[in-house]
Amino acid sequence: MPAKTKPSRRYRQFTQRRLEILRSAADAFARHGFTGATMEEIAETVNMAKGNLYYYFPSKQALLFFCQEQSLGRLLEQADATAKSAVPADEQLRAMIVAHVNTILREIYGSTAHTDFRSLPETQLKQVIKKRDRYEKAYRTVIERGIKDGIFRSCNVKASVWAILGALNWTAQWFSPAGSISVDELGNQFADFFIHALVQKGK
Amino acid sequence: MPAKTKPSRRYRQFTQRRLEILRSAADAFARHGFTGATMEEIAETVNMAKGNLYYYFPSKQALLFFCQEQSLGRLLEQADATAKSAVPADEQLRAMIVAHVNTILREIYGSTAHTDFRSLPETQLKQVIKKRDRYEKAYRTVIERGIKDGIFRSCNVKASVWAILGALNWTAQWFSPAGSISVDELGNQFADFFIHALVQKGK
Repeated sequence: MPAKTKPSRRYRQFTQRRLEILRSAADAFARHGFTGATMEEIAETVNMAKGNLYYYFPSKQALLFFCQEQSLGRLLEQADATAKSAVPADEQLRAMIVAHVNTILREIYGSTAHTDFRSLPETQLKQVIKKRDRYEKAYRTVIERGIKDGIFRSCNVKASVWAILGALNWTAQWFSPAGSISVDELGNQFADFFIHALVQKGK
Repeated sequence: MPAKTKPSRRYRQFTQRRLEILRSAADAFARHGFTGATMEEIAETVNMAKGNLYYYFPSKQALLFFCQEQSLGRLLEQADATAKSAVPADEQLRAMIVAHVNTILREIYGSTAHTDFRSLPETQLKQVIKKRDRYEKAYRTVIERGIKDGIFRSCNVKASVWAILGALNWTAQWFSPAGSISVDELGNQFADFFIHALVQKGK
């Protein structure tokens, strides 16, 4: 964060510029993958001097961490909003799944954040894992509520959440907008499948 | 492949040596992740001159491709064997899920193969995707058979397979042998969950 005075406005502008750079860099990632794209190629794609790019992102890890922060921030916001809605647990779970798929596949920072996040330096990795844990907990809470309300069967809640989030996160690896299924359809198909995995038999 | 005469024996030895190197390199990957580990660090960890390492793996991409080949070969072998077994579709699916989790989390090439495979050069990526498609098809076949036999409900088979394989592949990102669940338990919990997602309601 480069600002000392008026930090909040400057910081918003800084973040905005970083998002713009990321948007322009998408081509370089599409060609080489996040791992394969060098800072040189990113600078070239976004039409910036390399030194200028380094001001916004001192390294590819900084770029990856920024994507993680944006992506997890958005996911947590959505989960918090859903938790406040007064709808049954299965509908809440559907809303969370559809929102997650949309964030990963439609937001520019989404799929980048879901590549190899383990390559982050330890302090940043810890922050990311802490947020991921909070997000996982939001899923466990909604499933536990569904069990309590008799909508969902009693099951291994932790393993269920690992299965659901794994499937959602992995979409960043294979989904193509040119493919046979749209983002919304995929979100709803996944929601159907996972709700079916959780509902009481005979219901 | 360095051999011109007796290719099969020499090739087996070459592959064997590559697996040994990979096993020794596991420490470097554990410390830095596959993306973060440099060829220098790998050479140091396996106690080899860098030039010697390059003879076996000319690049990190060569190493990644080798892991993919080993891992997908093993998965396809297991799927073929399961397809030949005369058990109901839900039991076949369980066997495939348990075998997949074991290959990813127990074999040295497993989790490495399930990192960022998109960074492979195009010709290699095509080979990998072709095998992945074949493997996906094995899952679709067993689910379609289950539907035909009235064990599974009729559903979107493609999306179901994406969900299942996504969850399984993502385990490489988070599983730790020091964690709260063993590889076998995880495989069986996932199998329970996914079979539940597919079975007819009321059964």
